[in-house]
Amino acid sequence: MAAPRTLVRVPPRCRAGETIELSTLIAHPMETGYRVDAEGRPVPRDILRRYRCTLERAGRPPVVLFEAELHPAIAANPYLAFRIVARESGTLRFAWEGDAGFRHEQTAALVVDG
Amino acid sequence: MAAPRTLVRVPPRCRAGETIELSTLIAHPMETGYRVDAEGRPVPRDILRRYRCTLERAGRPPVVLFEAELHPAIAANPYLAFRIVARESGTLRFAWEGDAGFRHEQTAALVVDG
Repeated sequence: MAAPRTLVRVPPRCRAGETIELSTLIAHPMETGYRVDAEGRPVPRDILRRYRCTLERAGRPPVVLFEAELHPAIAANPYLAFRIVARESGTLRFAWEGDAGFRHEQTAALVVDG
Repeated sequence: MAAPRTLVRVPPRCRAGETIELSTLIAHPMETGYRVDAEGRPVPRDILRRYRCTLERAGRPPVVLFEAELHPAIAANPYLAFRIVARESGTLRFAWEGDAGFRHEQTAALVVDG
C-alpha cells in the first residue's frame, strides 16, 4: 500500500513556555461499515482507531503528549488540532493505527529556543 | 467549585452527510506537577486526563464520537478540534475529567436537516 498523504502543522520554531498548536490531517476514507455499495453489498469497515503524538528527545524515553480514540462518526481524512506547551526541542512523532493493520507514522522537528 | 468556563463551537445547523468541525475550549490551569512555587514548594499536579464527545438521540444508547487522553504537556485551557460526519440530529455532550475529582459536562444541540 502506498503511504497515505498527511499534512502536519507545527510552528517552525518557538520559545520555551510558549503555547503552540499542533494539527494533523491524514488521507483515509474512514469507512464506517454501515454503508452498502451500488449492488447492496455491505462495504467493510475501515476506520482509524487510534492517534498518538509523542515527543522524543535524545537519551530519554519518549513522552506522550496527546492520544485519541477515533470512532465511526469521525469524518474522512481525520483532522485533529490541540495545543501544547513547548518546553524542549525534540522530534514529534504522530502515529495513526486502524482497521486491517493500518499503521502510519510521521515525524516533525520541534525547535524550542531558550 | 464554580463551573469552569467553556467555549463550544458547533455549526448552528447542517445537512445529513456533511462534514462539520467541532471544537471546544475549557478554562483549566493544566498544572503539570513539575513546577515549584515562589517558596520552592512543589505545585500539586492538576490536569485534565480525559475528554469525550458523545451524541445522544431519543430512545437510543449514546454513541461516542471522539475520546482523548490528555497528558501534562497539554497547554492550559485545553483546546481541541476534530471533524465528524453529521448524520442525525441529537444532543452533543462534551465531558472533561481530571485530577482531584474534576468533572465537567457541557451539551450543545446538533441540528441536521434532511
